[in-house]
Amino acid sequence: MNNFVLYSPTEFVFGKNTEVQVGALARKYGAQKVMIVYGGGSVVCSGLLGRVKQSLQEAGVAYCEMGGVRPNPVDGKVYEGIRLCRREQVDMMLPVGGGSVIDTAKAIAAGVLYDGDFWDFFIGRAKVEKALKVAVVLTIPAAGSEGSGNAVITKTETLQKLGLCAPEHLRPVFSVMNPELTYTLPAYQTACGIADMMAHIMERYFTNTSDVEISDRLCEGTLTAIIKEAYRVKLQPDDYAARANIMWCGTVAHNGTCGVGREEDWASHALEHEISAIYDVAHGAGLAVIFPAWMTFMAEHNPAKIAQFARRVFDIPKSDDLEEMALAGTARLKHFFRYMGLPVSFKELGIEHPDIDRMIASLQRNKGELLGNYVKLTMTDCKEIYRLAL
Amino acid sequence: MNNFVLYSPTEFVFGKNTEVQVGALARKYGAQKVMIVYGGGSVVCSGLLGRVKQSLQEAGVAYCEMGGVRPNPVDGKVYEGIRLCRREQVDMMLPVGGGSVIDTAKAIAAGVLYDGDFWDFFIGRAKVEKALKVAVVLTIPAAGSEGSGNAVITKTETLQKLGLCAPEHLRPVFSVMNPELTYTLPAYQTACGIADMMAHIMERYFTNTSDVEISDRLCEGTLTAIIKEAYRVKLQPDDYAARANIMWCGTVAHNGTCGVGREEDWASHALEHEISAIYDVAHGAGLAVIFPAWMTFMAEHNPAKIAQFARRVFDIPKSDDLEEMALAGTARLKHFFRYMGLPVSFKELGIEHPDIDRMIASLQRNKGELLGNYVKLTMTDCKEIYRLAL
Repeated sequence: MNNFVLYSPTEFVFGKNTEVQVGALARKYGAQKVMIVYGGGSVVCSGLLGRVKQSLQEAGVAYCEMGGVRPNPVDGKVYEGIRLCRREQVDMMLPVGGGSVIDTAKAIAAGVLYDGDFWDFFIGRAKVEKALKVAVVLTIPAAGSEGSGNAVITKTETLQKLGLCAPEHLRPVFSVMNPELTYTLPAYQTACGIADMMAHIMERYFTNTSDVEISDRLCEGTLTAIIKEAYRVKLQPDDYAARANIMWCGTVAHNGTCGVGREEDWASHALEHEISAIYDVAHGAGLAVIFPAWMTFMAEHNPAKIAQFARRVFDIPKSDDLEEMALAGTARLKHFFRYMGLPVSFKELGIEHPDIDRMIASLQRNKGELLGNYVKLTMTDCKEIYRLAL
Repeated sequence: MNNFVLYSPTEFVFGKNTEVQVGALARKYGAQKVMIVYGGGSVVCSGLLGRVKQSLQEAGVAYCEMGGVRPNPVDGKVYEGIRLCRREQVDMMLPVGGGSVIDTAKAIAAGVLYDGDFWDFFIGRAKVEKALKVAVVLTIPAAGSEGSGNAVITKTETLQKLGLCAPEHLRPVFSVMNPELTYTLPAYQTACGIADMMAHIMERYFTNTSDVEISDRLCEGTLTAIIKEAYRVKLQPDDYAARANIMWCGTVAHNGTCGVGREEDWASHALEHEISAIYDVAHGAGLAVIFPAWMTFMAEHNPAKIAQFARRVFDIPKSDDLEEMALAGTARLKHFFRYMGLPVSFKELGIEHPDIDRMIASLQRNKGELLGNYVKLTMTDCKEIYRLAL
């Protein structure tokens, strides 16, 4: 087990009807004026936005708002938000939505107190030294952004989709999580979220760090719970318990719990980001395509941990042939993704002829010559994984 | 799943040699003068206290100190600490030790800013409204106090052993955890710590709250990891990986992770507190005696969750006879405790004829007529559980 620091100071307020506490919580954490950030009209139609505003009013917290954030969020909305924040003298960001909305709010939170271009943070030209507080009302369990210090934004001009990690400044001070708000998510979006949270765990799980039994078990337990509850939610979208379990799994997957003391991988995320940046597909769907391909590659090159996953998560019988076990586990994962209505190949994703050379060139520019840790992938390896996903 | 709030803001700094960071961390969290609290001479002999002091000096943080805290910590040391703190104008408590030392420091932290008797907090006569900051250097993985807002103190005069829960004020701001510091723990003390952390999980795990698959899996995974690593540490006390896994399990067991969204039980802890208050045995040893007796009682009265424990943690085959499964799981747990050198009966604990009537009278005074939640125990039930432990 490696040395580590775990710091997860977010106050998670979880359960039915919790959104009415937003105003009091914002006040408790010192907000005078918040900026509500949201996406499309669903939070308006559902009445959620109205309830959030009412809660803020009752607590005497002023607000302004910015809607229109789209999936695979882009830099344009960040610049717009920064201007609005400065004009309105906002002191807390309040995204109401899923990962795209939260990540946009985080980028604004960092950018508004920085003199240069916020994109500097994403290309490593500057470090986040301070930021507005971020608080969250979560409506889509997927990205885990409600408990993480990360954000992912795409620069429209160059189609670079890059991540920022600044946990000291960008971890939400509180996150309000009401599973009822997720009843109306379309089945495909629910499934994409499930693929995303599973990927967050697997990026941590597939490691060469030895002697990490406790975090192995936490990863495996969370994956097992997600799969069980996913079957339930597929059959009954308004099953509170299933929605609640999945929502909390999405947080556990990405708030640090599953990753302590281990080298993480994150190659699959980087491989996927090239897909969703260029083809604007859902991140979770891209991950459902890439992860099985990555695992198929690993079954040949480093099967040990994939085989452990197969045995402990999918009950694949123990065998001396680790590669065979690993492939059997990968097949079960693909079967699960398919059952959930997710694509598991470029073709099923609607991309018959992906421009692999373009993705590789972009990957190389964004990430350098080697990717990941479980096996350090050359660009030739990455090309093979894209091909395995055809 | 019940509504819940999870707030675990402690910064955990975990791994080899981390104690040299104490000074810088204390400074980061605003300390001007800390009070080091410790137990017997082991932290002196090992040189740990010296390294902590040196780290504080290098960071320009002043300190005073109070040693002599004993297992099953008593009110006397709390009063002594409060006087010292006031005289020395301490602004942060720094316990260096295990649960007894940390809990004493927490009680001091609350008491020093309160005009009345600190014991008021433990008997529910007053609520903690403010406290000095608490930071921890952990040397015994057991109580989980390094990540919790709880403290347990015994009043010498009345032999009342009571707990206080004030997470908003008493959760450590940081906890430094170096598994190497636990190499020299005697085997019995290691085993007691293991029983204690397992009990913390089981108090949360055995619940009637339905649809808590994610926290079920986190509980089961952590228990499974503890058992595996306990066998390793028994064979080789300086196995870093085993010590590290166990140390982190002790924190996961009690920082909230395992208990979200579920009604908890805590009857076994209350039953045990009467034993260690009167007979001054190690808390973990008392739990190793009480928990199997409690589970045996439950096998008859509410076997469902005990049977799930049996199946998922100890691989007991599935059967329609849940009571049989539950008893098989309980037998395996007892076997494990025995292998670790722990007592599993009053007799093995060295108490041939426990004064059950006295313990029941004290229990009733401290806790009222009903105990726990999984089955609400009458005092007659409690008497039966004590008898099952003979």
